Amino acid sequence: MLYVTRREVFSASHRLTNPDLTDNENVDIYDKCNNPYGHGHNYTLEIVVAGDINPKTGYVIDLKKLKKIIKTKIISKVDHRHFNYEVDFMQGIIPTTENIAVGIWNELVNEIKEGRLYSVKLLETENNYIEYKGG
Amino acid sequence: MLYVTRREVFSASHRLTNPDLTDNENVDIYDKCNNPYGHGHNYTLEIVVAGDINPKTGYVIDLKKLKKIIKTKIISKVDHRHFNYEVDFMQGIIPTTENIAVGIWNELVNEIKEGRLYSVKLLETENNYIEYKGG
Amino acid sequence: MLYVTRREVFSASHRLTNPDLTDNENVDIYDKCNNPYGHGHNYTLEIVVAGDINPKTGYVIDLKKLKKIIKTKIISKVDHRHFNYEVDFMQGIIPTTENIAVGIWNELVNEIKEGRLYSVKLLETENNYIEYKGG
Amino acid sequence: MLYVTRREVFSASHRLTNPDLTDNENVDIYDKCNNPYGHGHNYTLEIVVAGDINPKTGYVIDLKKLKKIIKTKIISKVDHRHFNYEVDFMQGIIPTTENIAVGIWNELVNEIKEGRLYSVKLLETENNYIEYKGG
Amino acid sequence: MLYVTRREVFSASHRLTNPDLTDNENVDIYDKCNNPYGHGHNYTLEIVVAGDINPKTGYVIDLKKLKKIIKTKIISKVDHRHFNYEVDFMQGIIPTTENIAVGIWNELVNEIKEGRLYSVKLLETENNYIEYKGG
Amino acid sequence: MLYVTRREVFSASHRLTNPDLTDNENVDIYDKCNNPYGHGHNYTLEIVVAGDINPKTGYVIDLKKLKKIIKTKIISKVDHRHFNYEVDFMQGIIPTTENIAVGIWNELVNEIKEGRLYSVKLLETENNYIEYKGG
Repeated sequence: MLYVTRREVFSASHRLTNPDLTDNENVDIYDKCNNPYGHGHNYTLEIVVAGDINPKTGYVIDLKKLKKIIKTKIISKVDHRHFNYEVDFMQGIIPTTENIAVGIWNELVNEIKEGRLYSVKLLETENNYIEYKGG
Repeated sequence: MLYVTRREVFSASHRLTNPDLTDNENVDIYDKCNNPYGHGHNYTLEIVVAGDINPKTGYVIDLKKLKKIIKTKIISKVDHRHFNYEVDFMQGIIPTTENIAVGIWNELVNEIKEGRLYSVKLLETENNYIEYKGG
Repeated sequence: MLYVTRREVFSASHRLTNPDLTDNENVDIYDKCNNPYGHGHNYTLEIVVAGDINPKTGYVIDLKKLKKIIKTKIISKVDHRHFNYEVDFMQGIIPTTENIAVGIWNELVNEIKEGRLYSVKLLETENNYIEYKGG
Repeated sequence: MLYVTRREVFSASHRLTNPDLTDNENVDIYDKCNNPYGHGHNYTLEIVVAGDINPKTGYVIDLKKLKKIIKTKIISKVDHRHFNYEVDFMQGIIPTTENIAVGIWNELVNEIKEGRLYSVKLLETENNYIEYKGG
Repeated sequence: MLYVTRREVFSASHRLTNPDLTDNENVDIYDKCNNPYGHGHNYTLEIVVAGDINPKTGYVIDLKKLKKIIKTKIISKVDHRHFNYEVDFMQGIIPTTENIAVGIWNELVNEIKEGRLYSVKLLETENNYIEYKGG
Repeated sequence: MLYVTRREVFSASHRLTNPDLTDNENVDIYDKCNNPYGHGHNYTLEIVVAGDINPKTGYVIDLKKLKKIIKTKIISKVDHRHFNYEVDFMQGIIPTTENIAVGIWNELVNEIKEGRLYSVKLLETENNYIEYKGG
């Protein structure tokens, strides 16, 4: 079993707020991240695919293909976008890094046909990151 | 002459748009960066102070003091903020990385009293950065 | 299950020496690291918490809380300190990166109450690092 | 159980081509990587050893020893070399990052006698990497 | 005056050899870099343009345009190529990092029409880099 | 004119204290850095040599030679050492990053005979660094 990682970077903005809570509760929980104007990050995304080596190619999955899947299914939808208003797979979901990682997993899990999606790692800053390995 | 650098990181969002241009012209020039919902970055800021060593301390400027100046004058105003709506020193200015770097220079230049402000370097992404050395 | 990482950096010094061995044996084993004056590192610490997403907040654990726990329980005790003489949880223990990682685990494991401590990763240099997952 | 990592960097070149395929098939699969003149990378290699702490030394394995094993068994054979023509353990194998990681595993697995080899991580670029955990 | 930097990465191979010297002299000077099969690197290229801010756009030069110039004039010619055999602007020149940086400068200097080319920085490894600011 | 950089890393410890000041004054100025037990860093050192390309070699200075000079004259004296007690060229000097950079300059300036020493950059942490250009 090998683990193949493709790293991509995108820039987006978000606001953390739970519509079921009061304004005061939202400020208590999210502090600066509740700022109504939103704020943004350069997110670093690492997609890991697990599988065996295809003896014909020497690849688990051709990284050019994996890159294309990530670009089409994720980067084109999130880069230079606002998660709360513009990203279809995050509508109605609080855009914490945790929830975005799960959302990206759900978008990709059926698109990877050589090997299988093993984990989604999402770095919000150089100090804060999330890894999700599926349900 | 020595050059002392302090690095700080902050997260903010912005939208690039020139109000004197038409919508089509703005899209032509700024493309994805003109997205009305804005987008964001983890900006890396490097402040360089030039000066001679104070023989009493061995410092050009105490980096704890420089850090405090940057935190008070810049980071507290820009971190988790939207440059177009919330940052006083950027009102009425297109928030390109170039203009933000000049804005930060103007905020800091009179606050540095040991040595002198030499340059403001601002990295918008790992691939795009600006340096400004004043005047 | 998600894995949430918080990264912190601290600077400390240490000397590797086993008091049950002779001076010659200590030099044989630890070489430059046995230098009596000690030497130091910028240690990078990555604390990983595993857990499920709290649907109210969208967080596994609020990273502001995790940061505060790490600052209070670890960074305040080790930053700008000498592991052999000044760090309570390392007294009587050879301060290798392995043993420091285990010591940090023991200090944190009962402090994490949302999710559970999953791993302590400690980088001594850009080339040498240790990960400990308990037990 | 602790995980000890040693990181090394080497520079090498390779050409991806499967001699059992036609030229057209090779270009279809490998594209730019099939260029007959070869191309190269600064590979980053991370060797992870798993084991318990030796109470005498506080080490799982002395990183100076691990470094020496990696230098002797791997770096001396691959640094500034062409994988297709000059690296004994890669002869007759398509030098994809996957296959190189497996090759390095096979060279090292019996050389690590304190703890056991846990994984070989090989980064071909800052965006593409492979991890192999044996078997 | 502002300095705008665009960073790109490419992978290439080269062999250092001076055809006017004997084989022994070449080995004496270039050691491992004289290996006839060549070796390779992930080169990091930083192109710096100096200029004033255009008040209409807030840019010195649109980084999308600068990126396109670098891709067309440099990356398309050097990525996954062998400097000794395949790169037109390096034929007949020893492909040291110094000479490649000068070659890239010559290719770009007349292509930058907003601001002016200020420097070419080329990193061969994380430890070795060259900067050229023109003649 | 080209600028050639060689990067090296070393680990050392130091204590900031001015013997001409009282204990209280030293604590006021240096705070945590005045800790009597000392503390340490992984210092990153970047040595820049300026010069013209030697047409015979294509080098300004052979980086293997520059590396050897830095290893012999600096790294062998400072790595795994305490600046206050063990480094000959820092005796009687407060070991701030500024003063260490000047000390390193003085050790190297007459050793570089191809090209000339242009700058010494010394990073104490990822956030604090000093550059010295002589004179």
